[in-house]
Amino acid sequence: MPKRILLLFALLIPFPDQAEAIHLSQETQACLSCHMSITPGIVSDWQKSRHAITLPEEAVKKPPLERRVSTQRIDDPLKGVAVGCYECHSRNPEAHRDNFEHFGFKINVIVSPKDCAVCHPVEEEQFRDSKKANAHGNLAKNPFFTMLLETITGVKIVDLAELSIALQKPSAFTKQETCYSCHGTEVQVKGTKELETKLGKIKIPDLANWPNQGVGRINPDGSRGACSSCHPRHSFSIEIARKPFTCAQCHLEPDVPAWNVYQESKHGNIFLSKQSEWNFQAVPWRLGQDFQAPTCATCHNSLITTAAGDPIAQRTHDFGARLWVRLFGLIYSHPQPQKGDTSIIKNKDGLPLPTTLLGDPAPDYLIGPEEQKKRQAVVKGLCNGCHNRDWIGNHFAKLDNTLKEVDQMTLAATKLLVRAWQNGIADTFNPFDETIEQRWIRQWLFLANSVKFASAMSGAPDYTSFKYGWWEMTGNLREMRDKVY
Amino acid sequence: MPKRILLLFALLIPFPDQAEAIHLSQETQACLSCHMSITPGIVSDWQKSRHAITLPEEAVKKPPLERRVSTQRIDDPLKGVAVGCYECHSRNPEAHRDNFEHFGFKINVIVSPKDCAVCHPVEEEQFRDSKKANAHGNLAKNPFFTMLLETITGVKIVDLAELSIALQKPSAFTKQETCYSCHGTEVQVKGTKELETKLGKIKIPDLANWPNQGVGRINPDGSRGACSSCHPRHSFSIEIARKPFTCAQCHLEPDVPAWNVYQESKHGNIFLSKQSEWNFQAVPWRLGQDFQAPTCATCHNSLITTAAGDPIAQRTHDFGARLWVRLFGLIYSHPQPQKGDTSIIKNKDGLPLPTTLLGDPAPDYLIGPEEQKKRQAVVKGLCNGCHNRDWIGNHFAKLDNTLKEVDQMTLAATKLLVRAWQNGIADTFNPFDETIEQRWIRQWLFLANSVKFASAMSGAPDYTSFKYGWWEMTGNLREMRDKVY
Amino acid sequence: MPKRILLLFALLIPFPDQAEAIHLSQETQACLSCHMSITPGIVSDWQKSRHAITLPEEAVKKPPLERRVSTQRIDDPLKGVAVGCYECHSRNPEAHRDNFEHFGFKINVIVSPKDCAVCHPVEEEQFRDSKKANAHGNLAKNPFFTMLLETITGVKIVDLAELSIALQKPSAFTKQETCYSCHGTEVQVKGTKELETKLGKIKIPDLANWPNQGVGRINPDGSRGACSSCHPRHSFSIEIARKPFTCAQCHLEPDVPAWNVYQESKHGNIFLSKQSEWNFQAVPWRLGQDFQAPTCATCHNSLITTAAGDPIAQRTHDFGARLWVRLFGLIYSHPQPQKGDTSIIKNKDGLPLPTTLLGDPAPDYLIGPEEQKKRQAVVKGLCNGCHNRDWIGNHFAKLDNTLKEVDQMTLAATKLLVRAWQNGIADTFNPFDETIEQRWIRQWLFLANSVKFASAMSGAPDYTSFKYGWWEMTGNLREMRDKVY
Repeated sequence: MPKRILLLFALLIPFPDQAEAIHLSQETQACLSCHMSITPGIVSDWQKSRHAITLPEEAVKKPPLERRVSTQRIDDPLKGVAVGCYECHSRNPEAHRDNFEHFGFKINVIVSPKDCAVCHPVEEEQFRDSKKANAHGNLAKNPFFTMLLETITGVKIVDLAELSIALQKPSAFTKQETCYSCHGTEVQVKGTKELETKLGKIKIPDLANWPNQGVGRINPDGSRGACSSCHPRHSFSIEIARKPFTCAQCHLEPDVPAWNVYQESKHGNIFLSKQSEWNFQAVPWRLGQDFQAPTCATCHNSLITTAAGDPIAQRTHDFGARLWVRLFGLIYSHPQPQKGDTSIIKNKDGLPLPTTLLGDPAPDYLIGPEEQKKRQAVVKGLCNGCHNRDWIGNHFAKLDNTLKEVDQMTLAATKLLVRAWQNGIADTFNPFDETIEQRWIRQWLFLANSVKFASAMSGAPDYTSFKYGWWEMTGNLREMRDKVY
Repeated sequence: MPKRILLLFALLIPFPDQAEAIHLSQETQACLSCHMSITPGIVSDWQKSRHAITLPEEAVKKPPLERRVSTQRIDDPLKGVAVGCYECHSRNPEAHRDNFEHFGFKINVIVSPKDCAVCHPVEEEQFRDSKKANAHGNLAKNPFFTMLLETITGVKIVDLAELSIALQKPSAFTKQETCYSCHGTEVQVKGTKELETKLGKIKIPDLANWPNQGVGRINPDGSRGACSSCHPRHSFSIEIARKPFTCAQCHLEPDVPAWNVYQESKHGNIFLSKQSEWNFQAVPWRLGQDFQAPTCATCHNSLITTAAGDPIAQRTHDFGARLWVRLFGLIYSHPQPQKGDTSIIKNKDGLPLPTTLLGDPAPDYLIGPEEQKKRQAVVKGLCNGCHNRDWIGNHFAKLDNTLKEVDQMTLAATKLLVRAWQNGIADTFNPFDETIEQRWIRQWLFLANSVKFASAMSGAPDYTSFKYGWWEMTGNLREMRDKVY
Repeated sequence: MPKRILLLFALLIPFPDQAEAIHLSQETQACLSCHMSITPGIVSDWQKSRHAITLPEEAVKKPPLERRVSTQRIDDPLKGVAVGCYECHSRNPEAHRDNFEHFGFKINVIVSPKDCAVCHPVEEEQFRDSKKANAHGNLAKNPFFTMLLETITGVKIVDLAELSIALQKPSAFTKQETCYSCHGTEVQVKGTKELETKLGKIKIPDLANWPNQGVGRINPDGSRGACSSCHPRHSFSIEIARKPFTCAQCHLEPDVPAWNVYQESKHGNIFLSKQSEWNFQAVPWRLGQDFQAPTCATCHNSLITTAAGDPIAQRTHDFGARLWVRLFGLIYSHPQPQKGDTSIIKNKDGLPLPTTLLGDPAPDYLIGPEEQKKRQAVVKGLCNGCHNRDWIGNHFAKLDNTLKEVDQMTLAATKLLVRAWQNGIADTFNPFDETIEQRWIRQWLFLANSVKFASAMSGAPDYTSFKYGWWEMTGNLREMRDKVY
């Protein structure tokens, strides 16, 4: 369709009142003229967003603590117009292997963190080297975890005649909707394909491992991550990102029960009871004023100030930046890794793990006591918004003890597994496929994690006790012992 | 109490402002005069409903897309009055075996879909032949499922002297509060009984299998279903029906984890974060305008239009009408059944199941490819409200692959079960009572279902992975194998 | 810091508008002058509370049904001032072993129910002898449960050389964050310690088993309980206490799935769908007017009236006062205990349990039929707000049958356990540490409880059926049998 006709259509676009004064680029008007009826939901979503009603050059003028953009200056193509379809979907076309000719415009299918960085460079930079941004490779490039993934998600074929169970390689589709649904896929451009539409045939990029919003997605421009994981999808909402339902998509039981533990905690109780009266849009986010109890974002990444505007914690999009100890995902607790790319870690036994199977850490790859202390101070400062320092000290002393005890419970399970290997009850060829091996995984990945999370977030008694907690750690150990002896 | 006195009382009824202009029938005023103080909660509930403030003859005059009633004309007794107690509880008395004399009026205890059909005939007709309306018989008339039900819900008596465990027949009460709580009971009128009340002794029908709001309830007028399952209870709320908490009562883990999967999905995340700003009352329900992400009702049955009022999907109260493949409840995936009454299905082995135990479908009872395609087009049209067609195509290609793989995982379990039967590890007399048989059920009823739902609703990674997903499908298979070899 | 300077600071305290007319004591102004910046969150929390804007002497003048305080007169130090920091944290200093000198004031760290009783004496009195207030001792003074606790929460050490698993005594920290997180710890004053603060070194009490908000906490003034368990934390909210998220912190699956069952019930469905329109602050709480479906508090303890103000149930802070049968926590159902201190109970076999291991009750310690009937009448009166008496009668007849059947399923498990003991498959030295013993615990503590709760709250079909329900009671029994025979 010729560009001129599209622009004619643009004049007819009904637009919400608040946005009428905002100028849209001609390109964005052209996008809207069709997508208003082709995909009306995302247009509505965008119309409700700040992007639709904000001129970036106004956004940069806000006082530092109130700013939602981190760039210091707005470049030419973004001057004078709101942030519409074309402003985001046309960036860095040369890097985007998913760029394609679309009714006279060069469009990228996927908007990547690198594209967002034109206005939000500090956020992108913080995120870029985080564990989250590296979530794809931290799984795909780690042979230990890849073997676990393939053991679990491959189809098993029983052959009764041969008395065997054959394990097939997992399909790309299944990997996409299991582990890589959170970790992020590598979106690949296989070529182009034709699609029949109301406006005739169109040519589009043929993408593999797509759709996917995993936080560590590898994008066709080579960048890592998906901002839409937490700021979905054309509303780019800070509110949604600050609510725990967002983190809950990936951080939940049985392996990462952060959300479940939060829900049972006093903080979660207050959030669930009072959330409708809180302000999830405010920047900065004022403790006591905008909210009465923390959500995930409060402790892990938001810019938090007092009601009077005094900073309590700086914003970060490196979601591990305030963490000193790594509670989950691995066999034993250990100091946080130095880098977001954890696939480079080697323990003393040469395995790509931050501790040995008996719990000995690999200090060369982990942060030291000084850095741990610095990070803990940030979190304690946040706790101190509502709790006195003695309370906080006792809380973290309790956590330290729990980590020690829970690691002992994992060590007990590991020792029983080693005995099973020695006894020939299980073989070491694949450490993930036999029943006793799966019980061992259960001990650290589900049960130990639950107790550690519940201890860290204080007050989710069932996750320390009867639901995946000490009850099951104890019972699981007993069942392992019954198999071994 | 004489009718005249009741009407005198009626003058004293305090009534909310908005309703004052609405005329109530004399009979309804009489009901209210007592029930205002006898059961004040349901009176308040009704007062807040549209029924209390709407004249049906006004409701039929609305433009077609805005109509909440589907009848074309209002019959005499409903003319000029709001829809009150008596208008619903007095209908079709000759058919209602639960009709009784109550202070001078002939009242039905239960209001059935057939009664509601006086104003909502299209909804009742769509519902009448659906699987939901047949949910009671689809269980009660299927000997395979009845045997499962009786194996599970009957009391077991251990006799240590005789070294036996005797299985008793389940009680009516337990059947009422387990399977038939969702599937619906058959409410039977056993006779009449006396009840002591503040106003003296009254005679009422003596009902068995009551109370119950199961969606496939057999009513004393011979009709099937309970509108109050989803539109509870005297508020007849469209809002509650559209919120996923309603569907969640029956469609939840471990056997039907639709709600759990939704909660973890991006759609659920957005709903939980933004629901307070949405309009759950609007008819039609406008995508982008009234809501930003779908709930169960959006995809499965509501009338959906664009913000401009262009229809995207027509309303249906046959909740399977938009479904082409049957994901849950049965051993293998298969095309949707042709009729809501699935108790008539016979597979090639003569079992009342839509596939054989090895997965071979019974095509005579299932919809064909054309019908499947037509239904899929409706759902894809809904997705297209926010997602482009390539995204949608990839999504459903992924689902197709998942169904194939998950069915293979169920087949693997079935083969191990067959071997157990051959080995004499379990007997075939009752295929549900031995440990390995229960593991087989677990494989398809809990684990396969979870993965299939999570794939269909896109983005509930734990239900494909560690929580009832591939992790447990794999582990369960291993444990079956350990028992068999 | 000298007191005079603190008071100078007080003049600068920014205060919300609504509170400006309220006089604060000089002591509270002094507290605020520092804590405004030291712990701003709790100051904000308090500022939003009724305490901050209410003069107790006004609160006592309200009509009886609207009163939120139960004292008849306000004593001198509370006259003319709002209820601020000092009014609560300075009470009964002679009894408080946690009292300490703090910048010129004598302050208690912990505010106990006994302190709250100055304005809320009736609530404190009702609570004092309840099972909740005795929750610490009911566990700590019962050797049966203490042994269970120690078996579960102690670290296990595997010694491969000696082929043994050694059970260590649980640490104080782990007990604090498992069982005693709900049951309440005994907070002990070990002495004093120094804390480095922005204002220099300060001396504070050195507390053990702290922080803790368990409902049966033993306080340093010798009193029992923590009002902040349900009215957190400086907002003292009646709204939060009335929302089910509060009770959900402790009353949840797998052992006490009250919240999970509620969530799946029709009551829960309506609450979750409509809560934003309800009034959770109103006193009295008017059925139909302020809420359309009950929460935990409605049935168990709130003062409930009709919209017209007629009382339906009186307020109680003895949370068992409306209960006639004890569903959970113990092996078999039985009448509620006569006293909140259940550690005094002895069954016929001399065990500290309300029934024998075969289900025979210990009537001397349990309420009789008359008292049961009286309590049931209160609950039936509440149901009657929305349901007719026949419905209610059927509901409770169903519950009675369920209790009988579920107790039979527990008895079956007990018999298999006894056989295992006789066979030498397990030893009786510790009845909680072997796999078959853990399955027996699972039968009554998780599975039976689930069915009983689901039956009592009507309409959570998965908790009677597939999720911890009859499905698992049946399967668990089968697995016990497989081990025994």
